[in-house]
Amino acid sequence: MEKQLVNAIQDEYAEEFAWCYGCGRLNKEGHQFRTAWDGEETVTLYEPKQAHTAIPGFVYGGLIASLVDCHGTGSASLALHRKNGFEPESGEEPPRFVTASLHVDYLKPTPQGVVLKAVGTVEEIHPKKFKVAVKVYAGETLCATGEVAAVVMPASFAK
Amino acid sequence: MEKQLVNAIQDEYAEEFAWCYGCGRLNKEGHQFRTAWDGEETVTLYEPKQAHTAIPGFVYGGLIASLVDCHGTGSASLALHRKNGFEPESGEEPPRFVTASLHVDYLKPTPQGVVLKAVGTVEEIHPKKFKVAVKVYAGETLCATGEVAAVVMPASFAK
Repeated sequence: MEKQLVNAIQDEYAEEFAWCYGCGRLNKEGHQFRTAWDGEETVTLYEPKQAHTAIPGFVYGGLIASLVDCHGTGSASLALHRKNGFEPESGEEPPRFVTASLHVDYLKPTPQGVVLKAVGTVEEIHPKKFKVAVKVYAGETLCATGEVAAVVMPASFAK
Repeated sequence: MEKQLVNAIQDEYAEEFAWCYGCGRLNKEGHQFRTAWDGEETVTLYEPKQAHTAIPGFVYGGLIASLVDCHGTGSASLALHRKNGFEPESGEEPPRFVTASLHVDYLKPTPQGVVLKAVGTVEEIHPKKFKVAVKVYAGETLCATGEVAAVVMPASFAK
């Protein structure tokens, strides 16, 4: 499977919003998840590290939750950016979303040593609130499904 | 606030189940969450690291999801262990749970530099399935609520 996406939305986040442990390109200790369009769906690829174990050989649920979370906010950003007439490669600063709620159903143990692929479909439920349905695959195996409600980061967030 | 609990259930997990990145005492790279009884409630304390940022100054949602997740499985283990007549200090091997589903509602930005306190209430919904309602506080501030459905790890889990 491909391991690298081009034109990820996180590449375009404003610098002050690029420090997330999950998806911040400037956070060198973090996962640096990157999310891009694949047709009308969104995709994030990530191979968990050896330490990200649940029991040896399987990925711990918190990593999958993090992947779903940041894939959700990234997907929402892609969608609103596109609605506004832009793609990641446009060079415009995209909107930054935060997570209102996160849900994950763990369907099967997720094997380590495999690139995980999160696939999302985005639905606008309010001009500032998007819902993202997420499926997480290890190879061909659907290991988890999730849903993220993401909202445009309020100007007051860090105040 | 206190930063260390005594008699955490994770201290008693069988060695092969003590490698979780979230709550495994043997995973030196992980969070090493520890969960204990506080009366009829369960508690996990954790101070996120500087790198666990969302935007600078605030904790990223994936860390909070991980905390809720492992607090949930640990709380379920505490509850079933107690039902079986044991406490962590009994020295018996406790049951090991895995997460079936995880839900988190992010209520407020969670400040960094503060010990987070996850508080859980456990409800048995089936002899092998427990539901844990979780509240995550930063100091006195309720920052997130969550719910975990945890099931006894099937013998076939890693097969």
